[in-house]
Amino acid sequence: VEAHAPRRRHRIPCRSPGDTTGLQAHIASGRIVAADIVAVMGKTEGNGCVNDFTREYATTALAALLGTHLHLPAAEVEKRVAFVMSGGTEGVLSPHVTVFSRKPRHRSRAPAGQKRLTLGIGFTRDFRPEEMGRRAQVEETAKAVRRAMDDAGIDDRRRALRAGQVPPALLQPRSATRAPAASTPSPPTPTSRWATRAAPRRWAWRWRLGEIQPAQVSDAAVLRDWSLASSVASASAGIELDHNVVIVLGMSAARRAANWSSRTTSCATPSTPARCGAPCRRWASPTAKTAKRVVNVFAKAEASPDGLVREQRHTMLNDSDINSTRHARAVGAVIASVAGRSLVYVSGGAEHQGPAGGGPVAVIARA
Amino acid sequence: VEAHAPRRRHRIPCRSPGDTTGLQAHIASGRIVAADIVAVMGKTEGNGCVNDFTREYATTALAALLGTHLHLPAAEVEKRVAFVMSGGTEGVLSPHVTVFSRKPRHRSRAPAGQKRLTLGIGFTRDFRPEEMGRRAQVEETAKAVRRAMDDAGIDDRRRALRAGQVPPALLQPRSATRAPAASTPSPPTPTSRWATRAAPRRWAWRWRLGEIQPAQVSDAAVLRDWSLASSVASASAGIELDHNVVIVLGMSAARRAANWSSRTTSCATPSTPARCGAPCRRWASPTAKTAKRVVNVFAKAEASPDGLVREQRHTMLNDSDINSTRHARAVGAVIASVAGRSLVYVSGGAEHQGPAGGGPVAVIARA
Amino acid sequence: VEAHAPRRRHRIPCRSPGDTTGLQAHIASGRIVAADIVAVMGKTEGNGCVNDFTREYATTALAALLGTHLHLPAAEVEKRVAFVMSGGTEGVLSPHVTVFSRKPRHRSRAPAGQKRLTLGIGFTRDFRPEEMGRRAQVEETAKAVRRAMDDAGIDDRRRALRAGQVPPALLQPRSATRAPAASTPSPPTPTSRWATRAAPRRWAWRWRLGEIQPAQVSDAAVLRDWSLASSVASASAGIELDHNVVIVLGMSAARRAANWSSRTTSCATPSTPARCGAPCRRWASPTAKTAKRVVNVFAKAEASPDGLVREQRHTMLNDSDINSTRHARAVGAVIASVAGRSLVYVSGGAEHQGPAGGGPVAVIARA
Amino acid sequence: VEAHAPRRRHRIPCRSPGDTTGLQAHIASGRIVAADIVAVMGKTEGNGCVNDFTREYATTALAALLGTHLHLPAAEVEKRVAFVMSGGTEGVLSPHVTVFSRKPRHRSRAPAGQKRLTLGIGFTRDFRPEEMGRRAQVEETAKAVRRAMDDAGIDDRRRALRAGQVPPALLQPRSATRAPAASTPSPPTPTSRWATRAAPRRWAWRWRLGEIQPAQVSDAAVLRDWSLASSVASASAGIELDHNVVIVLGMSAARRAANWSSRTTSCATPSTPARCGAPCRRWASPTAKTAKRVVNVFAKAEASPDGLVREQRHTMLNDSDINSTRHARAVGAVIASVAGRSLVYVSGGAEHQGPAGGGPVAVIARA
Repeated sequence: VEAHAPRRRHRIPCRSPGDTTGLQAHIASGRIVAADIVAVMGKTEGNGCVNDFTREYATTALAALLGTHLHLPAAEVEKRVAFVMSGGTEGVLSPHVTVFSRKPRHRSRAPAGQKRLTLGIGFTRDFRPEEMGRRAQVEETAKAVRRAMDDAGIDDRRRALRAGQVPPALLQPRSATRAPAASTPSPPTPTSRWATRAAPRRWAWRWRLGEIQPAQVSDAAVLRDWSLASSVASASAGIELDHNVVIVLGMSAARRAANWSSRTTSCATPSTPARCGAPCRRWASPTAKTAKRVVNVFAKAEASPDGLVREQRHTMLNDSDINSTRHARAVGAVIASVAGRSLVYVSGGAEHQGPAGGGPVAVIARA
Repeated sequence: VEAHAPRRRHRIPCRSPGDTTGLQAHIASGRIVAADIVAVMGKTEGNGCVNDFTREYATTALAALLGTHLHLPAAEVEKRVAFVMSGGTEGVLSPHVTVFSRKPRHRSRAPAGQKRLTLGIGFTRDFRPEEMGRRAQVEETAKAVRRAMDDAGIDDRRRALRAGQVPPALLQPRSATRAPAASTPSPPTPTSRWATRAAPRRWAWRWRLGEIQPAQVSDAAVLRDWSLASSVASASAGIELDHNVVIVLGMSAARRAANWSSRTTSCATPSTPARCGAPCRRWASPTAKTAKRVVNVFAKAEASPDGLVREQRHTMLNDSDINSTRHARAVGAVIASVAGRSLVYVSGGAEHQGPAGGGPVAVIARA
Repeated sequence: VEAHAPRRRHRIPCRSPGDTTGLQAHIASGRIVAADIVAVMGKTEGNGCVNDFTREYATTALAALLGTHLHLPAAEVEKRVAFVMSGGTEGVLSPHVTVFSRKPRHRSRAPAGQKRLTLGIGFTRDFRPEEMGRRAQVEETAKAVRRAMDDAGIDDRRRALRAGQVPPALLQPRSATRAPAASTPSPPTPTSRWATRAAPRRWAWRWRLGEIQPAQVSDAAVLRDWSLASSVASASAGIELDHNVVIVLGMSAARRAANWSSRTTSCATPSTPARCGAPCRRWASPTAKTAKRVVNVFAKAEASPDGLVREQRHTMLNDSDINSTRHARAVGAVIASVAGRSLVYVSGGAEHQGPAGGGPVAVIARA
Repeated sequence: VEAHAPRRRHRIPCRSPGDTTGLQAHIASGRIVAADIVAVMGKTEGNGCVNDFTREYATTALAALLGTHLHLPAAEVEKRVAFVMSGGTEGVLSPHVTVFSRKPRHRSRAPAGQKRLTLGIGFTRDFRPEEMGRRAQVEETAKAVRRAMDDAGIDDRRRALRAGQVPPALLQPRSATRAPAASTPSPPTPTSRWATRAAPRRWAWRWRLGEIQPAQVSDAAVLRDWSLASSVASASAGIELDHNVVIVLGMSAARRAANWSSRTTSCATPSTPARCGAPCRRWASPTAKTAKRVVNVFAKAEASPDGLVREQRHTMLNDSDINSTRHARAVGAVIASVAGRSLVYVSGGAEHQGPAGGGPVAVIARA
């Protein structure tokens, strides 16, 4: 039992997409043990769109660094650590990574029965282009999410869902070829999380998660029936991957390694632009004292497909110089303003994640 | 005396930069009398940068419309109405114009001694390119601001300044040629408002206002000494103009036409990104009731020249695809989120307007 | 009979989208008679995409100018002069308009039987959103093209087509609402020109011309069967219009007003990127002498939908900052380099106009 | 002596900035020996501006690949191989690398006295921010260029210069901090090549080469006196480096390893937009036969600082969405059109490299 439970989630600013000196310093000082790292979520300073290579570059650089510490090739590192990167920080966001680690032999010191934040990861197999956005990817993703939840010790999925305490699972697939438009099949269980998909926008597939009844799932619903949406899923798409990487954060009463002893809690709620600061305000009113409790904020956002924001016209769908996913930077500004920090994770493109024009917001805060 | 004092400030959404159907409908219905219009401030959906022709197009279209009602050529309309347009609405802002009008024979119904919001306008003569950003423009601008204040009936400049109740005066100059870099000379009076200037960024001059002692003014201070800043000035630059257009909004106890009888008040405070929502929160907490009192919000914003936001790196100065003035859209999102509406006027590029990295925020609200 | 036949096509540089001083000077000097102007084709300096308002602004400014000369409201001018504007000049292109005029009582001085360049214009009625890209628009466009050919005195359509001497007919429609994807019905006659359509890219309809057998036309073919293409059509789309504006340039032996007496000829050939300079080289080898014969070059270009240029990968389909239609600026550079001038009309987006990845190139030169 | 002299310069297409599979295949097949590689010049698909991380990413990936073959850390690879990357391929350019290699024990088979293409590389020490663009960097660069020329066996510098046969030496420096504007001191020898510099555009230093008399060099001349220009220098700037990397290509009669036995020759001439295809036309008229002789074309280009192209206005200096360095893509299109291939190296930003508005063009072709 440790005298001082080390922090399990570190926000580390980055000076460039390939900059790993921050993590290196944490490892050198012992604040982070390389072998304990299980997941990294980061914001990089690319355009967040199709030709954004900063996501891939950041992952490559981080995997190379960890490889030297773990004496593993970078490719092997990517099989045991879940890297999820989202591009785009213009506005007030600041490039950074949040590093999640856990001790293999660690036991939670939380009182029995009390829930603590926990994390699990999962991977799917590589997909063939024609599987992207179709049944194969959906089913494999559902399996990977379930493995991640088992890994995290989140046993009561229904309750987790109801409480809205199962935050971002992120998917990053890639289409090597230009496959035809896609569909989504029936998920294995009700209320499980599985990927719907988003558009082959300029040849890149974008995938999304949802919690929906199997019968509701059809090809025709994808990118059309916006009522089919997950309130707790956040998916980023990158052309650099052929498989899905899943991170599940949730609350668990299980006393095991995955259950951090620090009294950390989280919340996740679907949000519309009108309310996108609300979940943060619960944890971080703009005073120095409470804001310090916030570890990080994770959110998805999108320009509303009906072209309206607060009943007036927005211009994101017509702007040919500014991709509509960059609308997320406006939401990021609101969240940063409430949370009192620019190191927040707000990612663009929230199709089937939250209501149309909205997206999930999850706050990790110290209890 | 009117039974029902008509509204004097109308927010009108625009469907495109050349769309004047909204104003046309207000004139047709009698809600706005064309001859009473004295100023129009608008947000158009261009990029807000040098090659943004939507400002000029909107002004051209509005002047043409008013010309048909006033039986004047468009060029004459631009001599009696102050048009101030600011480009850039990506994110959550919505293109619109705020139309200010006043009755020539109108008398304020406010109790004697009680101040009401009032407005004045002024114009400078055309400048020669070599005068831009130099003594000639500064002095002429100071004169125009003074004329606008006289026009508005704001007699106590010191008190107005102290109370921070003299909101945006906006300048839109233009350099027809590529003149060398510029300077700013001594202004005629202490605490008067005068234009400093901003950089000939890509051949376009950008001008700014400040309230500074004459002795402080020197060429070397321009775009260097950020402590020289106006807390109540907002200047937009466009290559489409050769002269400055000035609008002054302030509080006045004088019982005259310029003094609107509706109990309207305003505030203006310098603001940094950390506090950019604060002035709005005073008037518009996010409840339907109070938010309705807000007529409009006018603000300037800029990416901090030190490259930092909340002590972390921002990426606006290095982004070669997203001009740094677009940072203002992030501030616009915060203000829209607090004010509860997307029809707000937030303009980018706040050199010498508010502290470095900040800018003035003015709220017009019904008392 | 005039002693010196005045030039009928004037290339006039523009200082900005709203700049009409060049045309004004030509009218003031008598080089152009306002009442003789029948068509204006221009390149403006917007982004050439959906939120490019410079096309609309240029047309508005030109119509206002001509209105003062013709004592007509601008709206009436737009009913008798065909304005076709294409945005986008980044690279080496230079903003300009080509003004086409003809004398009502003019008789060609060309020897009997010898063909001369001639021009006709046509307009369709306004379309309803649901007609865009469907049978109604196609049929109306075919009719307008036929009226324009009659207007121009091009009687032998088959021969004209075979010779490839019927250059750009341009369409500029607009969808006010977000109508569902569209189709194209059977055209009235074989080998007539009619509009196919292009995608509702970000809610804006893009329309194209083709010369195809009626039986070949089906909804499924649109934006899929690239073999269905016109070798002589050039269509620009703008959200600012509700109807189509058609200009037909061709050779005619008829001795009438539309047939310019100056010995002018033209050519139009489909072109791929590999050969996009070829038509120009026939008329303008890069020597001062021959280049002077070229009046203007009109071309369409597009990034090949297979993602390849000269058998290697191009990056236009993946670039989220640079719209793929901007690929036309690269083709414009090649054409400008061969023609020896930057005042050329090269427009992006050539769906169903020329082979996939190519587009028509038309040269007007003095014989 | 080899029976068949292997090719020494390989053009290898890249599927993404981090894609090294092409080079890997060449090494696996024995066509390229990893230990023989001395230099790599590449075009990557970033924006070519300040926040273009694809240059750095490509270098990182290539160095990692070679490291595995040479059993060296990537950092060591970068000390013996000169990597020069230039971002920006929008238009018709295609991402690729040109790999230069040479056998240590190789002897040229060219007849005595006959010159062959040869290559040398050099590196400077790391610079401190305050040295960037000043005397220290200039002198160190001049030394590195001289070392590279010695390395290449180009002994007669004057003749080489006169013949214009010393093609691109490229510099990639970086400023970690925001140092004040810079100057250039006296170079060690007349007619030596040394760096002038370019602007700290958005905090990034851009360095350039020139061949100038020492007395001509002054701080005031930098980015002002455009007559001070090198006709044979090509410099790319990236924020990812702290030192300069130099590649010198030239003709040499010395029979040594650096002198490739294949009968390869090169030319380099300064070029303006009007003539930018001329050097290529000498080697590659657009026929399949002659075009095959061209190995690659290396050029620099820039939008003319006087705002004109062929005596008409260009719009690159006013476009706030398209950085002016992207003008080089238009020149790249012309060169690709003449050379008949899209795998050409055309890089933007040619300050002090060739005449104002122009840049050097070098062709490597088989004799």
